[in-house]
Amino acid sequence: MRAEIISVGTELLLGQTVDTDAAYLSKLLPQFGIDLHYRVTVGDNESRLAEALQLALTRADIVFTIGGLGPTIDDLTKETVAAVLGDEMALHEESAQRMRSFFAARGIDMPESNLKQAMIPVHGKALHNPLGTAPGAAFESAGKVVIVLPGPPREFIEMVDSQVVEYLRGCVGEIKSVIRSRILRIAGLGESSVAEMVGDLLDGSNPTVAPLASAGEVHLRITAKAESADLADAMIAEMDAKLSAILGDSIFGRDDETLEKVVVQLLTQRKLTLALAESCTGGLISDRITDVSGSSATLMAGFVTYSNSAKKDILGVDEQLIIDNGAVSEQVACAMAECARRVSGTDIAIAVTGIAGPTGGTAEKPVGLVYMALSAAGKTIVFEHRFSGNRLDIKLRASQAALNMLRMHLL
Amino acid sequence: MRAEIISVGTELLLGQTVDTDAAYLSKLLPQFGIDLHYRVTVGDNESRLAEALQLALTRADIVFTIGGLGPTIDDLTKETVAAVLGDEMALHEESAQRMRSFFAARGIDMPESNLKQAMIPVHGKALHNPLGTAPGAAFESAGKVVIVLPGPPREFIEMVDSQVVEYLRGCVGEIKSVIRSRILRIAGLGESSVAEMVGDLLDGSNPTVAPLASAGEVHLRITAKAESADLADAMIAEMDAKLSAILGDSIFGRDDETLEKVVVQLLTQRKLTLALAESCTGGLISDRITDVSGSSATLMAGFVTYSNSAKKDILGVDEQLIIDNGAVSEQVACAMAECARRVSGTDIAIAVTGIAGPTGGTAEKPVGLVYMALSAAGKTIVFEHRFSGNRLDIKLRASQAALNMLRMHLL
Repeated sequence: MRAEIISVGTELLLGQTVDTDAAYLSKLLPQFGIDLHYRVTVGDNESRLAEALQLALTRADIVFTIGGLGPTIDDLTKETVAAVLGDEMALHEESAQRMRSFFAARGIDMPESNLKQAMIPVHGKALHNPLGTAPGAAFESAGKVVIVLPGPPREFIEMVDSQVVEYLRGCVGEIKSVIRSRILRIAGLGESSVAEMVGDLLDGSNPTVAPLASAGEVHLRITAKAESADLADAMIAEMDAKLSAILGDSIFGRDDETLEKVVVQLLTQRKLTLALAESCTGGLISDRITDVSGSSATLMAGFVTYSNSAKKDILGVDEQLIIDNGAVSEQVACAMAECARRVSGTDIAIAVTGIAGPTGGTAEKPVGLVYMALSAAGKTIVFEHRFSGNRLDIKLRASQAALNMLRMHLL
Repeated sequence: MRAEIISVGTELLLGQTVDTDAAYLSKLLPQFGIDLHYRVTVGDNESRLAEALQLALTRADIVFTIGGLGPTIDDLTKETVAAVLGDEMALHEESAQRMRSFFAARGIDMPESNLKQAMIPVHGKALHNPLGTAPGAAFESAGKVVIVLPGPPREFIEMVDSQVVEYLRGCVGEIKSVIRSRILRIAGLGESSVAEMVGDLLDGSNPTVAPLASAGEVHLRITAKAESADLADAMIAEMDAKLSAILGDSIFGRDDETLEKVVVQLLTQRKLTLALAESCTGGLISDRITDVSGSSATLMAGFVTYSNSAKKDILGVDEQLIIDNGAVSEQVACAMAECARRVSGTDIAIAVTGIAGPTGGTAEKPVGLVYMALSAAGKTIVFEHRFSGNRLDIKLRASQAALNMLRMHLL
């Protein structure tokens, strides 16, 4: 079964709204074995919406429209769908009644124009909208289905999760094929290196493996299509094993396992405590770690020591070391980590010092140069990195590399 | 002049990525008087991309493609555009050279597959990509233009802001009507309060004023359409003045002026130094402040003191105060701010202590309860907040309220 999504709204074409609804619905369809080949966005314009609908009906069995169900004259989705399908609409008394009560409860006279929201197709059914006044609708005509949904994300998501899921269950009957996917998350390697390492595993057609560069990490998305979720999962597991054999510890997590989540898990399992001394990352590592629930058991203290005096007075870094080597140096990174560990009495401390830019770079020490050190019982290790990008990119990449350094130490 | 945007990527059709790029580009086009009638999304599939391109070329003068320029075999946008337009491609030596230097600087051998990214159309031009290895391209064929841009948002935005803007300036000649907009950013008031205060200013048709709730702040977007940018700007300025008269200091900035940017500006102008003591926000306030270039002149030190022992040992908070009142209390918030200010020797210190959840809440002190204090010469002020949402929402809302507390103190 093939689907197509048509998002309707001039605010989308003006870029004033990002289309999160379409992404939300897209995520749901593979679970029903429904393929999505196209998404289209049009403005609040009857003829272009009609044209998009006609085209979609030639290449999909089920078409979803999002938006354009409001009470004003530029909300014309339902009317246009009815015209394209040659269907009539009738007042849905239950929805009209709900609308009247909604306004009555607020002591407002209902504008009569609102009643147009309660019109639903003669061939098809109303889809209840518990969070808004406009019901959705499923038009059923000549073997095709057009599901019409409201645009406000809160109403949309509620309706997709209940009404649409239920409707699709009824539609697809026995599910013939499902698509499942899993993301392998990789740190410490670039996209082209990953692609070269996994070679022709990228060429398969089922499951497919697709690389994607994300901020400071690379994702490999494995997607399998099979007769059942169990079969698809087994195909994914097999491919996962092959990729894992090649990429080893560079894979830090799967799906929504962030690097900070994995690091907090490792620290917690090993009952180790952590301190952080951040200069150029400015608190970002600490922020990411505390995004993880339960991190309070492991993160004892974080220091943001931007200035030389803070490095000296708060952490106790030897002033001469800063004078001799500069604040951005291997030596100061190591001293910051060792001092942070001593001051906080933790098992491990991480320190990061670098130049996030845009100013402060020199020929010898350019913007993007970052040193990071890890101090643990009896040893201190230090790495030099050169990151590209703007200030926020450099902060993010440095935080990513520091978390990965900690992860590799813990493994 | 008409445009169409084609976003390319299976990750979009699987809902794994939200298409912010298309929205960003959509926003730019009205400034050049270019109408956008359709946006289309296809997966990494040659025949469907070719079909979408052919259709787009029948209804638009200029087609933008986003994504599919990477080094791997499922990145096939440029090749497909060349095939549809019947154009050839040739190696762009300058881009190839940049690519080789990029890898050499990192001491990595460049995978040969990367060179395909440096191919550009014979009829058209390369569009420089300062933040990535893959250049974009403008194909020029039979009176139509296809502009091919990379998908990673960082690279995409940089290229749109420079290369695409410049290219469009050359294309459009004289501009007939422009749409301009401005966002007023408001802190400390909810969306419905803002809507109630500004009343029927929301009902105008040109300029329009649309409210939008964002994380911890409310935006009012003013949009005006006029014959020239100057006229549209004048209409916006007039509406801005009306809204400012009503909302006063609740408006903290416009467009991309973040709260942290405004706060750093105020601190810098007043030559004041700042220290932070963060418990439940876990470094987020510090991270946000250090996102602002130049913040190093004002942020002297940040402390992430999650544990009671860190509050006591590092900041010097009286242990008895914690025992008597709990770590999440007005008293401890005040003590944290006063201690942080003393330890760092700054003019001002901010402290935040609360329960970010999901665990740790009680009937008396529920998840979302946050105290924040500000210590300055001769005075300490403290506020109690109750935020809703998940752990990340509560961290973000608390950081927003703390930055706004600091801003109001500085005004």
